[in-house]
Amino acid sequence: MEHIQFNLAQDRIPHTWYNILPDLPRPLSPTLHPATLNPIGPGDLAALFPHNLIQQEVSMDREIEIPGEVRQIYAQWRPSPLFRARRLERALDTPARIFYKYEGVSPAGSHKLNTAVAQAYYNKREGTKRLATETGAGQWGSALAMACRFFGLKCKVYMVRVSYDQKPYRRGMMETFGATVSASPSDETDAGRAILERTPQSPGSLGIAISEAVEVAAKDPETKYALGSVLNHVLLHQTVVGLEAIEQMALADDEPDVIIGCTGGGSNFAGLVLPYLGRKIKGRSRAKVVAVEPAACPSLTKGKFTYDFGDTARLTPLAKMHTLGSTFVPPGIHAGGLRYHGMAPLISHVLNLGLIEARSVQQLEAFAAGVQFARAEGIVPAPEANHAIAEVIREALLAREEGKQRTILFNLSGHGHFDMQAYIDYESGKLQNYDYPAAEIAMALAGLPAIG
Amino acid sequence: MEHIQFNLAQDRIPHTWYNILPDLPRPLSPTLHPATLNPIGPGDLAALFPHNLIQQEVSMDREIEIPGEVRQIYAQWRPSPLFRARRLERALDTPARIFYKYEGVSPAGSHKLNTAVAQAYYNKREGTKRLATETGAGQWGSALAMACRFFGLKCKVYMVRVSYDQKPYRRGMMETFGATVSASPSDETDAGRAILERTPQSPGSLGIAISEAVEVAAKDPETKYALGSVLNHVLLHQTVVGLEAIEQMALADDEPDVIIGCTGGGSNFAGLVLPYLGRKIKGRSRAKVVAVEPAACPSLTKGKFTYDFGDTARLTPLAKMHTLGSTFVPPGIHAGGLRYHGMAPLISHVLNLGLIEARSVQQLEAFAAGVQFARAEGIVPAPEANHAIAEVIREALLAREEGKQRTILFNLSGHGHFDMQAYIDYESGKLQNYDYPAAEIAMALAGLPAIG
Repeated sequence: MEHIQFNLAQDRIPHTWYNILPDLPRPLSPTLHPATLNPIGPGDLAALFPHNLIQQEVSMDREIEIPGEVRQIYAQWRPSPLFRARRLERALDTPARIFYKYEGVSPAGSHKLNTAVAQAYYNKREGTKRLATETGAGQWGSALAMACRFFGLKCKVYMVRVSYDQKPYRRGMMETFGATVSASPSDETDAGRAILERTPQSPGSLGIAISEAVEVAAKDPETKYALGSVLNHVLLHQTVVGLEAIEQMALADDEPDVIIGCTGGGSNFAGLVLPYLGRKIKGRSRAKVVAVEPAACPSLTKGKFTYDFGDTARLTPLAKMHTLGSTFVPPGIHAGGLRYHGMAPLISHVLNLGLIEARSVQQLEAFAAGVQFARAEGIVPAPEANHAIAEVIREALLAREEGKQRTILFNLSGHGHFDMQAYIDYESGKLQNYDYPAAEIAMALAGLPAIG
Repeated sequence: MEHIQFNLAQDRIPHTWYNILPDLPRPLSPTLHPATLNPIGPGDLAALFPHNLIQQEVSMDREIEIPGEVRQIYAQWRPSPLFRARRLERALDTPARIFYKYEGVSPAGSHKLNTAVAQAYYNKREGTKRLATETGAGQWGSALAMACRFFGLKCKVYMVRVSYDQKPYRRGMMETFGATVSASPSDETDAGRAILERTPQSPGSLGIAISEAVEVAAKDPETKYALGSVLNHVLLHQTVVGLEAIEQMALADDEPDVIIGCTGGGSNFAGLVLPYLGRKIKGRSRAKVVAVEPAACPSLTKGKFTYDFGDTARLTPLAKMHTLGSTFVPPGIHAGGLRYHGMAPLISHVLNLGLIEARSVQQLEAFAAGVQFARAEGIVPAPEANHAIAEVIREALLAREEGKQRTILFNLSGHGHFDMQAYIDYESGKLQNYDYPAAEIAMALAGLPAIG
């Protein structure tokens, strides 16, 4: 029998998250206050986040302990499985060995629950009564709704309009967990109303939804804000993925030559790769690390590395990142989780340091890859993850062309059970590629403040 | 850290299925030919099933080897996890210990893939080109579509009309795997056309969809028929569930006092309980074993134990089972997998032998239980499994009332990711209970042939 599972027992759930900040060869650029443009201090974030998360955002401790209550909830699905995709290898007739870490086994359906549980825990401990957040495709919103339920917090979700319409069952899931969900832009906030006034048919974007959630949190002392990606502490919580993968690849007696993840805000990618980058910085890994983004929203491959706001209404601090401009509204691709104008500053930084590479994939190539993966491996992937799979297939076919073995590892960040309309549309020829929206991006970038 | 996972490594996947037939204190009644009413022989089934499955249907071998290729595919999700539902226990404030075997981790989303892979394998080996089948909620149809794809077989699915309309994304999944799906009753078969002529708005039933699939298989020499439940060989393939559970309960250092599963055709229930019944027959278990069915389709609790056809058009052999009459069309409850007029003859037999008990649950109690489970454990269950959960909660509350510890084990047969409309309807008060359809059942039973 071929070995295809490389799984760990409950007691192998990591005890600490891995913080790459102290290992970086150059430090991250500071985050700036939106009004003063001076570096922010912890106090500036206190209205939005609990103390512990603000500390984690800037901590220089390499290892940060995972609280027992969080580990206990992780035990529902962690350690997540590592699979070798032998049927996909055979379908591609490639000498490459393909491994994937599968985060879709989380009850929320994706890696997002890793940080949702941690964020809900710290908020609960510090007296928060309600969390407000944005969600694109709904993976993050349903994870936070579930985590809030576990800790007895209320949850308010602004769901990007185009995904709200495309994925009604994601909303059903969030509501089953007791969350309140509104389509964004909504008429509930100043930010939403301002957008609707200018663009009544706005499909929404993560940038707009973030503005709405931040505004709600800033105005209500009992409500704090939770972000599903981008920030250092969010990426930190995801590192359980890579820490487990390192142990599991050792079980498989193999070592990745190429590591691949899709990128929207950067969190699932970071989760798998940051622990490997830590090794790479120390010379203990020579893996090529590739971030894959949609051609319709190509912040890493086509964006500008500069200071920008995290949201459209300019309520958040400014961070130095690869951005398409915070007013840019990406085309309505089905990978709603990747429709973000910016990128995690940490991922932007490691790209700038040359530790990772970036590629983009068109929607049709992504879905073709997803269907090929599903037919070989059985799992229907989330549209976001299809971007990673497309790059995996490119690498595997290159290996076949070159007649060279290589070991590929990727993060299958979630399943596509709530995205079947996208597959139905793909099969019936209704999905399309999008040209690079050069004019819209140029306009959005032209509006950025000139800093540094 | 509390232990909540009791998992086994890939090499602990059972090597054999458990066949209870040789251990039964009294043998099953023979299956009868629909035309002659004489006991059928293997030749009578050769148009519908491959030789190996016909043999398994009547085999008196206690252990039947699982082919290596089937075990290899099982390794994608087996051994499936066994969880202790500690958060649910606390939510119920019960002294009971609640364990569940979770079959929703299969890439098809339910236990159905256990037999789909086996059936596709044997058909492939014997030269079948295409499989025809019925599906209710779509769990079985998507499992068979996936298994057919793995073995390069074509797949034709007749999906019960009411589920076809309620669960469009299940169809999307089947089509992603390359299956052809029609709503049943369809105008593609004599059986379907006859129903549509009498009842143009028929919601369909498993009995009708079986007639259509059997007719297609009988008429095409390259097509065979595959059934997702009811038959001995189907139940046999599911016994991996219980065989693993026995090992996992030993890891948990516990032994079930009560074992619970939902029943439609009987396959997920059989999968968990048959290995335990084998022990019970030998005096090695004293567990109470409870089958739970919908009050709207109560074959075990209100049906007649008699010979009936497996389908509505009377194309299949007759089996002795608890039945509501093969022309009975159950109300359109969301648990489409439980809308079957009959019951696996083997499950009917063990009920008749007093080895198990049966209960029924109304739709609203089932969904209330499902939501309570989801909020505690994170997993949104399939509507079918909600029936089992409702009975688990009854038992747990009884334990609280009596102040007595007991260990409850149940089969969480699948997730409800494709059933979110049902949860949305439940939350918005649109779901209803159904009175026992006494008149319709009396009429259906009156039409049965008088045998034995």
